[in-house]
Amino acid sequence: MTAAPAYRRLSVEERRSQLLTAALDLFAHHPPEEISLDDVAEAAGVSRPLVYRYFPGGKQQLYEAALRSAADELQHCFDEPHEGPLLPRLSRALDRYLAFVDEHDTGFSALLQGGSVVETSRTTAIVDGVRRAAADNILSHLEVPDPGPRLRMTIRMWITAVEAASLIWLDEGKQPPADELRDWLVEQFVAALEVTARRDAQTEALFRVLAADL
Amino acid sequence: MTAAPAYRRLSVEERRSQLLTAALDLFAHHPPEEISLDDVAEAAGVSRPLVYRYFPGGKQQLYEAALRSAADELQHCFDEPHEGPLLPRLSRALDRYLAFVDEHDTGFSALLQGGSVVETSRTTAIVDGVRRAAADNILSHLEVPDPGPRLRMTIRMWITAVEAASLIWLDEGKQPPADELRDWLVEQFVAALEVTARRDAQTEALFRVLAADL
Repeated sequence: MTAAPAYRRLSVEERRSQLLTAALDLFAHHPPEEISLDDVAEAAGVSRPLVYRYFPGGKQQLYEAALRSAADELQHCFDEPHEGPLLPRLSRALDRYLAFVDEHDTGFSALLQGGSVVETSRTTAIVDGVRRAAADNILSHLEVPDPGPRLRMTIRMWITAVEAASLIWLDEGKQPPADELRDWLVEQFVAALEVTARRDAQTEALFRVLAADL
Repeated sequence: MTAAPAYRRLSVEERRSQLLTAALDLFAHHPPEEISLDDVAEAAGVSRPLVYRYFPGGKQQLYEAALRSAADELQHCFDEPHEGPLLPRLSRALDRYLAFVDEHDTGFSALLQGGSVVETSRTTAIVDGVRRAAADNILSHLEVPDPGPRLRMTIRMWITAVEAASLIWLDEGKQPPADELRDWLVEQFVAALEVTARRDAQTEALFRVLAADL
């Protein structure tokens, strides 16, 4: 974020975005219950009433807005051109995803571990939206026109397993190194599809395409 | 549950257990926000004030007590003698687990999908306790004295993936049949360990033991 010069009045959009950036940074590195609106005001260099003017719903509204903004950023991690072999595409997306997890460590754990004071059906829906987007994105790269239940289940299980691995990774002081974790997750993806391929013709055809790149 | 004859006064423990059984049955098949204390009173054939006498914290307390009781039941699914080949032990535990998921369908989904009105840090801790118990249980069967981070991560990822598969299974009208899902989950377990075995000597030794049974 570029610091706005003190002498310039920010537009409504700029101010909102400035507050959101400050909030996101705080929520990324502290559990939500430890963050107060005063902290956000201080981090943004503004007064508490100003934060309330932009976010009259207070901390809950600010948290949801910050989460939505983080979710957008996370979804951008999955943007990958539909070109070249499939597994390197997955590797590159995982690199960006793990960099995101690394940057938002505490917030990421607090959010996914649930039971947070600021968790609501709306925050859950935002997180579920990201999971669904990830699954749709993977399926679009696999170019399976009408994915059946077994293939979809395999993809969604792998996405959940990646989430679990990310949380454990944060818990373990970010060990093993991100690139090793990434390679291992890609290998887990291939192995999961291989198991499903034994029971599902659609997944088998797909696995043959993947195996040709290995 | 055996219905108590109307003429007999129940002991405090019996009454508490009767109310809990009624609550658990309701929470198993309806989202918690749809259940009122009146419903619990009606299902147990008692008055609303009586429910409050036993659970002065109201619905939240009743939900947590029901959840704790369901968590105990779920943990019993993992009770499996440390005898015979490992994978059939895992299959039998999964059979019991899937029967539990089948019996508590709506409650199981509501609980794990998060964002529930009755979710708190305490309910989250109960669910996390079951996850940890499952991981410890598997590691105890594998008889690895000091499991390293890669093996632990693999086990925990698989447990999360099983949870995800259970939710999808409920979403898909319990398809494929439970025994097919069980076999597929066991195969996913073996495949996940095989991938980790390539990077971890401890997992490799374990995988050789498992592979001997295949």
